[in-house]
Amino acid sequence: MRYTKLTFACALALSSALTAPAFADPVQDALKNDEVAWDIVEGLTTEIGPRQAGTAAEARARTWSVAKLKMLGLDNVRIEEYQMPTWVRGTEVAEVVSPFPQKLAITALGNSGSTPDTGLTAQVVYFDNLAALQAADDRQLKGKIAFVNHAMQRTQDGSSYGAFGGARFIGPNIAAKKGAAAIVIRSAGTDYHRNPHTGNTNFEAGVTPIPAGALSLPDAENLQRMIARGKPIELKLVMTPRNIGMQTSGNVIAEVKGSSNLPPIVIACHLDSWDLGTGAFDDAAGCGIITAAALIVKKAGQPKRTIRLLWAGAEEVGIWGGKSYGEKYKNEPHGLAMESDFGADRVWRVDFKLPENAGQLAGDIASALSPLGISRGTQAAGGGADVGPIIDAQNLAIIDLQQDGTRYFDLHHTPDDTLDKVDKAQLRQNVAAWTAVLMKVANYEGSLALEPKP
Amino acid sequence: MRYTKLTFACALALSSALTAPAFADPVQDALKNDEVAWDIVEGLTTEIGPRQAGTAAEARARTWSVAKLKMLGLDNVRIEEYQMPTWVRGTEVAEVVSPFPQKLAITALGNSGSTPDTGLTAQVVYFDNLAALQAADDRQLKGKIAFVNHAMQRTQDGSSYGAFGGARFIGPNIAAKKGAAAIVIRSAGTDYHRNPHTGNTNFEAGVTPIPAGALSLPDAENLQRMIARGKPIELKLVMTPRNIGMQTSGNVIAEVKGSSNLPPIVIACHLDSWDLGTGAFDDAAGCGIITAAALIVKKAGQPKRTIRLLWAGAEEVGIWGGKSYGEKYKNEPHGLAMESDFGADRVWRVDFKLPENAGQLAGDIASALSPLGISRGTQAAGGGADVGPIIDAQNLAIIDLQQDGTRYFDLHHTPDDTLDKVDKAQLRQNVAAWTAVLMKVANYEGSLALEPKP
Repeated sequence: MRYTKLTFACALALSSALTAPAFADPVQDALKNDEVAWDIVEGLTTEIGPRQAGTAAEARARTWSVAKLKMLGLDNVRIEEYQMPTWVRGTEVAEVVSPFPQKLAITALGNSGSTPDTGLTAQVVYFDNLAALQAADDRQLKGKIAFVNHAMQRTQDGSSYGAFGGARFIGPNIAAKKGAAAIVIRSAGTDYHRNPHTGNTNFEAGVTPIPAGALSLPDAENLQRMIARGKPIELKLVMTPRNIGMQTSGNVIAEVKGSSNLPPIVIACHLDSWDLGTGAFDDAAGCGIITAAALIVKKAGQPKRTIRLLWAGAEEVGIWGGKSYGEKYKNEPHGLAMESDFGADRVWRVDFKLPENAGQLAGDIASALSPLGISRGTQAAGGGADVGPIIDAQNLAIIDLQQDGTRYFDLHHTPDDTLDKVDKAQLRQNVAAWTAVLMKVANYEGSLALEPKP
Repeated sequence: MRYTKLTFACALALSSALTAPAFADPVQDALKNDEVAWDIVEGLTTEIGPRQAGTAAEARARTWSVAKLKMLGLDNVRIEEYQMPTWVRGTEVAEVVSPFPQKLAITALGNSGSTPDTGLTAQVVYFDNLAALQAADDRQLKGKIAFVNHAMQRTQDGSSYGAFGGARFIGPNIAAKKGAAAIVIRSAGTDYHRNPHTGNTNFEAGVTPIPAGALSLPDAENLQRMIARGKPIELKLVMTPRNIGMQTSGNVIAEVKGSSNLPPIVIACHLDSWDLGTGAFDDAAGCGIITAAALIVKKAGQPKRTIRLLWAGAEEVGIWGGKSYGEKYKNEPHGLAMESDFGADRVWRVDFKLPENAGQLAGDIASALSPLGISRGTQAAGGGADVGPIIDAQNLAIIDLQQDGTRYFDLHHTPDDTLDKVDKAQLRQNVAAWTAVLMKVANYEGSLALEPKP
């Protein structure tokens, strides 16, 4: 009996191996075999490394990307340049002067003002969170260094960034308006390494930027413990970033040409990175994922709709690439937008924003994703930063493949965003998920048009 | 029935609470209640921070320690100074110049030579490990930057440090003798953060020190990937450490006085730390553990033997404190030596080096440690760096409480050695283990003398 069963199973396996083409299923092909996504992440992080927008490194990254995308066989590969204001990092040192002299690990936030070259020393005023800073009397802050703490925790959906990131997004502007000499925040991050998290902050027109830095979590907690001892804390900051004016940045665009004139699907990642890490998670991975998936779809047969890849420039420092794309292409009808910009960990949920008539498409996609461990969410898809402007311009349909963000804010905007953090198996699961979606949506002949905006 | 049982249990608990003194067992007291060890680690890391030997920070740490140890009620608290040569860090930047320009995270090794202020640029010559460097022809290295890789992995007993640390310990000397312009090594560490591991290296008398730095693991692997592409790699190093001559360092010594004239038990930790982190794991934790345990033993009743605490200075940079102690006290008979200098994670094994007549003592100690999850090892105890000189001078008996080193080399000599890495429960388990040992050994009236050295 046992012998018979085994023989039958073997015969079945053998027959399957002999008759079926290997991985006729493009999704399985992606999951088991893809090397393209890894190759792009490995290449960008090794051969280019950090590629801050507006710098020579970002320009080298564009040249590298064009060569890579052409070599991979994509169509209409091109660079589309634009100009953008550019801020660059200088020296950055933070040092408790008294009563507990020691250095603290700090990094300047994008758009931070500069201290004098010899630094700035002032007393620290502590705030538990952004609300406490907002509520503070200006007299408390005048000439002082505000220190804004918060309690950001790891979340799978990354929602803690929105909830606690305000200390970075708007804290410096508030502190500047209240007359603070400078501000330091607990990094908008979740790891306990001495690698502070940078990221843009913005000052309102007419507000003079003050020096604004982020402390690593161990340093923020050390400063908090010092403050808890009840003595005035004198902190010295030397941070000398500067604005170097308008510089050239650019998008890299490539396509898998469709067989019809149906509006294209635009899929985006961003090519620029912050200067501290090598931008593996943020966002070489996204570029690797969308490109690998588009190529697998192409290999499976020409899709009906063109798939347009937008490797956006200058996302980190103000979404200049996304805005440039939105402006340039606002009059060319698009079918749907997607974006990959949340690391390299596995996709766990799919969200849709589709017209009512496309209910079957959503169901088909959800079914195709289910074997990959991806469930269907209940909220409307929102897109991403770089496809935001074209979505807004055209009220586009959107599909979001939500990645697991549990460890994303351990790495985000830190020196630790390096290749070794990328898990090959999870990266391939992303490629497989994107392949599953693109196979359906790029071959969908129905209308994807949403009602015009109210 | 159920009511009766509960009543009985409650009555028993109540009776126990009313009649027994709380935690009559000092080991349980340590495990459940100790705050002293944490308080010392928290205080040193917050109020002093990094405390490199020979610097003002180490001097502040001595002052802090004397006040703390007196406040805790220890006897004969004192500083014993000595002079030692002192090396201090300068600028440190590593940058691939071509063909893949980007910065690499580097830190200078202790005793590293200096580059010119404008830096040094040379081609990188790759070696898989120390043996490959040793085997290299001098002509390969002349004027080049040696890059020594290795495959160090996490080990519970820390043995990988000895096995793979040679790239740091002796690699620079070998490279210097072969005519290399400089050397960079993969950090002797096991974590993937952009925080390279420093630590001393040594050049033989007559060998001119060359610039010697450690790359973080992500950076070492990035450089390795660049090299694998087959093109010559030009690396620029700017490292400007300098020797500032003989400086004052010192040991802090305190005692729990014994009731007899039996030779004292010396227990050690080290007060100095490397300059990059705040020295929580290495070795404020050790000082916290031994001190907390000694105080609990004291609270349980005056021990027969004096317990002498050696908070050694200048361990990291050449064991100057341990050598000073060994020289100063070589003629005062000691009973036994112990040391805590392997972080703050739990003790998992006990090793002995005791005279044959003390077999019962070893058995008693092993029994007392067993409930803490500590097993008896089969190798002879070796002591530690700071008690090494006095052990050598007197052929002392030793007990080693081996700590779990699985994550020790994630933190060792990096900026990441900060308070947040210390787990309170594991720290208390250490205090409990030390309490168990000291209760036995400090009250042991038999001879602890080993045979004189052969």
